[in-house]
Amino acid sequence: MATNQEDVKLLGPLGSPFVCRVNIALKLKGIECEFVEEDLRNKSELLLKYNPVYKKVPVFVHNENPISESLVILEYIDQTWKQNPILSSDPYQRSLARFWSKFIDDKIVAASFKSAFTIDEKEREKNIEESSEGLQVLENELRDKFFGGEEIGFVDIAAVFIAFWIPLVQDVSGLQLFTAEKFPKLYKWSKEFVDHPVVKKSLPPREPLFALYKGRYQSLFNASK
Amino acid sequence: MATNQEDVKLLGPLGSPFVCRVNIALKLKGIECEFVEEDLRNKSELLLKYNPVYKKVPVFVHNENPISESLVILEYIDQTWKQNPILSSDPYQRSLARFWSKFIDDKIVAASFKSAFTIDEKEREKNIEESSEGLQVLENELRDKFFGGEEIGFVDIAAVFIAFWIPLVQDVSGLQLFTAEKFPKLYKWSKEFVDHPVVKKSLPPREPLFALYKGRYQSLFNASK
Repeated sequence: MATNQEDVKLLGPLGSPFVCRVNIALKLKGIECEFVEEDLRNKSELLLKYNPVYKKVPVFVHNENPISESLVILEYIDQTWKQNPILSSDPYQRSLARFWSKFIDDKIVAASFKSAFTIDEKEREKNIEESSEGLQVLENELRDKFFGGEEIGFVDIAAVFIAFWIPLVQDVSGLQLFTAEKFPKLYKWSKEFVDHPVVKKSLPPREPLFALYKGRYQSLFNASK
Repeated sequence: MATNQEDVKLLGPLGSPFVCRVNIALKLKGIECEFVEEDLRNKSELLLKYNPVYKKVPVFVHNENPISESLVILEYIDQTWKQNPILSSDPYQRSLARFWSKFIDDKIVAASFKSAFTIDEKEREKNIEESSEGLQVLENELRDKFFGGEEIGFVDIAAVFIAFWIPLVQDVSGLQLFTAEKFPKLYKWSKEFVDHPVVKKSLPPREPLFALYKGRYQSLFNASK
């Protein structure tokens, strides 16, 4: 538990899946954190100070030490606050968690976003296919209630993008990216995951994010007409 | 040290920088390993068995447990065999090492390769610029003899691509990607690093790799004429 001596900050827009990962981990651990909302069109001096290399969010700052990259931050949080571990202590299980989290980032996140937010039809089809292939691989991989077993762990947290953001992108675009018919196990997982009490209170409000994406989607396709 | 009960295998082509990373870590730890040379145009059944998702190299196999992704493998090796640690035990130092290794993979590796092996001139220029920007950020970051301090560590091992493969790509293409004038600290580091006794015996032989790249380079540009 963070003591009075500890200074814990999280910088980023509330609507980012990468910020949400960090939020879930902190709430699981019971760590209080000062959230600094960032407007990415007008980055704060604090953000530029703490992440001069990428200027990317989230930035997590613990006692003035800044850390970037959401998966790197999750590892730090898990090593620093040991309660409710999100990574197994077994080296092989840890490797698998790291592999699958990287897989989600490399194969699913960008492809799913681009499935909706791409004007070029060929490019869009390619992304829909890549996203679908990635989700199928994860569908085959899921064996328990959560990727972490009976409790949520590192991969579940990394996969919050699939449980919350892909359905949003789907509703905005009308595409059938992630349905119970196509990915029954993963779909069931996504429902259980967003219903988990810790996850529930870590997710951003859905409506304003839907409106933001819808606006972006419409202006993209209207501009291209 | 690996005992007789342990089965340690590394699958991949000897000329891959990602395979070399694992090789350096194993040699630093004094772990004996069966090396299974892979021809990427004709992947072995063993490779497809152990890495059905990506079919990518390297695959590291410890007592029948396969692990993919070179940085994930390095973490596993460091946790499994504690001697000569490559990651600090301090959570913040570990985060920095993970951040910079990912930075090398995301910002430098592909861009440097594509600086030479791209026909489209605009695309090539973009990659040269991106590679140069990435190297400059690392140049500013290097404070000690090695990224790991007085001893080589995680980031140095990840950066073997810069020390050995970029000079190769440079010699093959005639481009000035990585010179003592542009990046004095990083250049000095690269010399010390490849001269380190453990690194020296982990690197692939230069001449056949040079010939391979030269052939690839010539056929690419001849085919485009």
